[in-house]
Amino acid sequence: MTQPDKATIQAAVARIKPYIHQTPVLSSRSLDALAGAALFFKCENFQRTGSFKMRGATNAVFSLSEQAAAKGVATHSSGNHAQALAKAAQLRGIPAYVVMPSNAPQSKVEGTKAAGGAIVFCQPTLQAREATLAQVVAQTGAAFIHPYNDYRTIAGQASCAYELFQQTESLDYVIAPCGGGGLLSGTALAAHYFSPQTIVLGAEPQNANDAYRSFHAGYIIPADNPSTIADGLRTSLGDKTFGIIRQYVADILLASEEWIVKAMRLIWERLKIVIEPSCALPLAALLQNRPAALQGKRVGLILTGGNLDVGVFFQQYQ
Amino acid sequence: MTQPDKATIQAAVARIKPYIHQTPVLSSRSLDALAGAALFFKCENFQRTGSFKMRGATNAVFSLSEQAAAKGVATHSSGNHAQALAKAAQLRGIPAYVVMPSNAPQSKVEGTKAAGGAIVFCQPTLQAREATLAQVVAQTGAAFIHPYNDYRTIAGQASCAYELFQQTESLDYVIAPCGGGGLLSGTALAAHYFSPQTIVLGAEPQNANDAYRSFHAGYIIPADNPSTIADGLRTSLGDKTFGIIRQYVADILLASEEWIVKAMRLIWERLKIVIEPSCALPLAALLQNRPAALQGKRVGLILTGGNLDVGVFFQQYQ
Repeated sequence: MTQPDKATIQAAVARIKPYIHQTPVLSSRSLDALAGAALFFKCENFQRTGSFKMRGATNAVFSLSEQAAAKGVATHSSGNHAQALAKAAQLRGIPAYVVMPSNAPQSKVEGTKAAGGAIVFCQPTLQAREATLAQVVAQTGAAFIHPYNDYRTIAGQASCAYELFQQTESLDYVIAPCGGGGLLSGTALAAHYFSPQTIVLGAEPQNANDAYRSFHAGYIIPADNPSTIADGLRTSLGDKTFGIIRQYVADILLASEEWIVKAMRLIWERLKIVIEPSCALPLAALLQNRPAALQGKRVGLILTGGNLDVGVFFQQYQ
Repeated sequence: MTQPDKATIQAAVARIKPYIHQTPVLSSRSLDALAGAALFFKCENFQRTGSFKMRGATNAVFSLSEQAAAKGVATHSSGNHAQALAKAAQLRGIPAYVVMPSNAPQSKVEGTKAAGGAIVFCQPTLQAREATLAQVVAQTGAAFIHPYNDYRTIAGQASCAYELFQQTESLDYVIAPCGGGGLLSGTALAAHYFSPQTIVLGAEPQNANDAYRSFHAGYIIPADNPSTIADGLRTSLGDKTFGIIRQYVADILLASEEWIVKAMRLIWERLKIVIEPSCALPLAALLQNRPAALQGKRVGLILTGGNLDVGVFFQQYQ
C-alpha cells in the first residue's frame, strides 16, 4: 500500500459513512476572545465509542475482503482504538481480538467487552504485548489493525478533517493533537487534497515531545516513557505517520501540563462538553504560545474524544 | 396580559431568534436501550449564558417599548435567570439591575457581572430580597422581569419545545423539569399549539415535590425550604405557571436524589456533555419510574443548563 491519495480518502469517507456519526462543530464567543482568533471545535467526543478512533478502525475493518474479514481482526491497545475496533468488527459481524495489559483500566476493559471484543490479557510489557498479539494472529488468522501506523487507519482518520472542511468554510489553520500521529497525518492529507490553503499544525505535550523532536531532527525519536496527563499522546510516531507529517505538517506546538489542564477546564466550562485530557492540546498550545500568525484567523481544533472517568466529580454527591 | 396563544409564541420565536442559539438535539443508542424508548435530548446547556433562561429573558427584554426599555430591567435571582437577563439587557443596550443575596455563589456573581449586570446585594431573606427589588424599581423605573411567573418569560421558554418539535418529528412525549414552572408551562403551550399529539410531563425531585402536590391538590402548595441537589428546582409555582400546568400538563413524575445523580452521570458519560443537576430530572424520573406508557415511544427530554462548578473534578490535577 502507498500513502492514501485523494481517491482513497474519498473512498474511506463513503465506506464509513453508514457506521459513524457526523460530529458537530461548536464555537464560543468567549473562547474566541481569549484566543484572539475564530475557533471551530470539531467534536469527536460525540463520535461512536467516544473518539475519532472509530473512523480509522471502521475504514480498516470494512476495507477487508470477505475472506480476510471472516477470520476477524486483532490489535493491541488499552485505549480508544480497542473499543473502536471492537465496535467496527461487531458492525461487520466478525470477531475482534484485543490484547490488553493485565493492568488496563477497568473502564476500558468494560467498554471493549460491551462493544463485543474478545480480550486477551498479557503482562504489562511491550515484549509480552507483541508476543501475545503474534500468537493471537497465528492462531486465528485475524488481520492486525494497527492503531495508527496503517494507511487504512490513516485514511479513516482523514475523514474527520474532511468533514470539518465541509462544515466550516475557509479555515486558515487546523490544529490536531499528536500521539502516534494517525489523526495528525490524516488531517494533513485531508487538508492537502481538500483544503490546500489550510495550514496544519500538530499539538503535543511538552512532557511527551517526541513528535516535535522527531519533526525537527528529521528522523523518528521514540518517546521515552513520558509522563503527561494526556494519556492518549504518550505513544511514538510510526514510519508511515511520520512520513506524512514531515511532508504536510507546518509545525508542531507544545503545551505544558498546566496549560493542558487549564484548556481542558475552559472547554468543559465554556463549551459544556466532556473531553479527555488529550483533547485539550490544540487549545492549550494555542493559548500558551499565542502564535502571532494565528491572530484574527479562522482556526479549526480537533477534539479527539470524551472517554475518561468522571467519578471524581460525582464523589461529592455520595 | 393573558396566557400566550399561538401567535404570541410565534412572535416570541421570531423576536428572540437573532439573539439566541438554536441548540442541538442529541441521542444515544445506549441510553435508549436503558430507557426502553427513543430519547431526544434538547441541549439547552449549549444555550447562550448556559441555560434556557436566555429565551424567556430575551423575549421579555425585547418585548418592552423603547420608552420602558430605556429605564432598564430588574429582577431578583441568584441563578441562571440573573445571567440571562443581564445578557439580554446588554444585547438591547439597556441596564439590568439584579438583586442577589449576599451569600450568592461567587460563580453566579461573576457570570452576571461578565454579562454587564449591575448587582445589588441584600440580606439572604425573602423579605430583604423583595424590599430591595421594590426599592431598585422605585429608584430607577426599571421593568421587573420575573424569572418564571410572567407571560413574556413563559412565551420565551415555549420557544425551546417549539424548536424541538421542528428538529424532531412525531414525539409522543416531552418531559421538562419543574421548578417555578416557567419552562414546563412554556413547553405545555408549545405542545398544545404546535404538536398537539405530544403528551407533556413534568419532572420534579421527590425532595421538592411542591408542584406534584399542587398539581394533585388543585391549588398551589408552596415549597417548604426543600433540600435537593437540583438547586434550580427549589422554587414554588406561580399562579400563571400553575394555571397553564393544570390545564395542559398530563402528569408530574418524581425522582429521588439517588436517581438524579445516577441520571446526571449517565448523561455526562454517554452524551459527553456537562449538565447541571436540575437537568437530570427528566431522565431520572423516566429511569426510576419506567412508566409502561412510554415504553417504545419517542420521548423528548429538555436539558435545561450547564452552569455548575466543575472545580471538584479538576482538583485531581493540582
